[in-house]
Amino acid sequence: MKKIAILGSTGSIGTQTLEVVRENKDIEVSGLAAGNNIERLEAQIREFAPKVVAVWSEERAKELADKVRDLDVKIVSGMEGLIEVSTLPEVEILVTAIVGMIGIRPTIAAITAGKHIALANKETLVTAGHIIMPLAKEHGVSILPVDSEHSAIFQSLQGGQERALHKILLTASGGPFRGRRWEDLQNVQVEDALKHPNWEMGRKITIDSSTMVNKGLEVIEAKWLFGVDVDQIEVVVQPQSIIHSMVEYVDGAVIAQLGTPDMKLPIQYALYYPERRYLPGDRLDFRGLAQLTFEEPDLETFYGLRLAYEAGKAGGSLPTVFNAANEKAVSKFLNREIRFLEIPEMIQACMEAHKNIANPSVDEILQTEAETYDYIESRW
Amino acid sequence: MKKIAILGSTGSIGTQTLEVVRENKDIEVSGLAAGNNIERLEAQIREFAPKVVAVWSEERAKELADKVRDLDVKIVSGMEGLIEVSTLPEVEILVTAIVGMIGIRPTIAAITAGKHIALANKETLVTAGHIIMPLAKEHGVSILPVDSEHSAIFQSLQGGQERALHKILLTASGGPFRGRRWEDLQNVQVEDALKHPNWEMGRKITIDSSTMVNKGLEVIEAKWLFGVDVDQIEVVVQPQSIIHSMVEYVDGAVIAQLGTPDMKLPIQYALYYPERRYLPGDRLDFRGLAQLTFEEPDLETFYGLRLAYEAGKAGGSLPTVFNAANEKAVSKFLNREIRFLEIPEMIQACMEAHKNIANPSVDEILQTEAETYDYIESRW
Repeated sequence: MKKIAILGSTGSIGTQTLEVVRENKDIEVSGLAAGNNIERLEAQIREFAPKVVAVWSEERAKELADKVRDLDVKIVSGMEGLIEVSTLPEVEILVTAIVGMIGIRPTIAAITAGKHIALANKETLVTAGHIIMPLAKEHGVSILPVDSEHSAIFQSLQGGQERALHKILLTASGGPFRGRRWEDLQNVQVEDALKHPNWEMGRKITIDSSTMVNKGLEVIEAKWLFGVDVDQIEVVVQPQSIIHSMVEYVDGAVIAQLGTPDMKLPIQYALYYPERRYLPGDRLDFRGLAQLTFEEPDLETFYGLRLAYEAGKAGGSLPTVFNAANEKAVSKFLNREIRFLEIPEMIQACMEAHKNIANPSVDEILQTEAETYDYIESRW
Repeated sequence: MKKIAILGSTGSIGTQTLEVVRENKDIEVSGLAAGNNIERLEAQIREFAPKVVAVWSEERAKELADKVRDLDVKIVSGMEGLIEVSTLPEVEILVTAIVGMIGIRPTIAAITAGKHIALANKETLVTAGHIIMPLAKEHGVSILPVDSEHSAIFQSLQGGQERALHKILLTASGGPFRGRRWEDLQNVQVEDALKHPNWEMGRKITIDSSTMVNKGLEVIEAKWLFGVDVDQIEVVVQPQSIIHSMVEYVDGAVIAQLGTPDMKLPIQYALYYPERRYLPGDRLDFRGLAQLTFEEPDLETFYGLRLAYEAGKAGGSLPTVFNAANEKAVSKFLNREIRFLEIPEMIQACMEAHKNIANPSVDEILQTEAETYDYIESRW
């Protein structure tokens, strides 16, 4: 019996991870963690019977404990609680489906405790890849990508030789505003940006997809996961989202992973790697597939992607600034406090104002995040 | 130093294999074999200094021996000569780039002598796959596909799990007559059929591509190489020939190999497998690639492909009839003795007339070939 814990179990990836668990008989959930959605958590506890469940807020944790007092489950809270769930002795794989840099400390704790990481919390690698990857190597644990693109790259690298990798072709749908110019995006509303053409995802990541900042975060994530320079990562717009990403080897061969847009595939692949198992769901039908098209990304209009390359190339604490500024900006945009085009503006302003720290510690990363938030609050 | 021998060194695959050898410093050619083109053979001998060279005709072998009497090379002839080249003690890999069933005996001899086979001679597997594959297993040698499609499948299977393979998606360009109906092909001339849209190949295989019989031979070849039923092999027309083939796993993930149309890639991959090395040449440029399209094959017009599925499913000596009838028909078409549409007609007539032999021996396979030729000569 494979035992897992899930950070962020009530979100999009978390619930789909539980769907995968539901469809397999040999996997058990020992721990769950979520922010505040205790109603959904309660249902998950009743269905999956975890031993320990973490809720971020202490108050909500108490409410949940009250709701499930008929069950044999320990409810914990705060960072301490997150870390307890991440390091449960029986857990083999920790699924980090939590959003934001809050995932850094639990991920480090889990790696140190010898857990494999099924990683959907890209902020952890974006901001602390220089800490996470050597630590994983030291403890002999795998960092298994759950992002659709990174899973595609990971799958395409199987049986290949690391040193024969020439470049990564990271595909992008282009988001809902593909083809539009900067001046066309002046009056974009929250509702427009939330309409992703191919994938159903959470709100934050859907906005990130519309600005292509998400692709930028993925570029930095790929740099750490696959040990390449950002210059070796080329973003290719593939609007149908059928090719989930590709790798090009030194001999010119390109290996790609294609599929329907179903996050359960990369989730299940990470949980059972290197085994592939049957997964119910739609299959690609090439006979019914009219065409696949390819475009260059428009780095003028979607210059958040260009900024990600800059941050990824500079390294240090700059990717943290990139990520934190974007988080804050997206939150303000979702609250209708700023306009769509102010998202990359804010990121650029924060990056320009930041004095880069080489090899930042976790404390320095979290301090950079806080300073970036403060900078935005003080300026906008 | 890796030592190889090449059967069919003056043909399209043979000369490209020698180009790969020329570009690598750690590979040597110990043996060469060709039909009758002794002028090209002489040049190859002078450049690559093989120890033994086989020429099919005894007379031409003598002529060649005279031309290269200043060199330290042994010239041999006939089937005995082919087998001598195929079993040279120092050879590690035999490249079977010869056309036709003439490759069966030398391939068996090489496997028995413990050589790995870089296989471009698809007729060997089509007609004698039931003998070749178990023999290779018994002797612990690899059958490394050199066909572009089969190499793509082989590459896409690396790191995958054999038992997780759900189906093979064998891509086809559709040839020069894609989109035409049977009635449009009444007056096709040899010159029309020789115009392949994407690949430069020999004359026989180019005609086979125009009838889609080549794809049929590849279906049967894939059945043996990858141990699947023909029903698990789906032909997908991909007119741009960018996707060289794909595999679909049980979880729905599709892994594909893409590239420019350059046979040196599968050749080099087979010679250095599992290592990938730098290969000069054009690279796929997705930013410049407008689109990839997909179509179902037209099994009514190109019913040679349908006949291949029938032959592959029935097994026994029927694939030999399919292949031999096609060889004879193509030769007659190239000699302008028959019309284009008579090619599949002849194949069908021969298959219908044949009494299938289960598990035929090499002698029975070769006898079936001879009988098929005779049947055509007696009827047309």
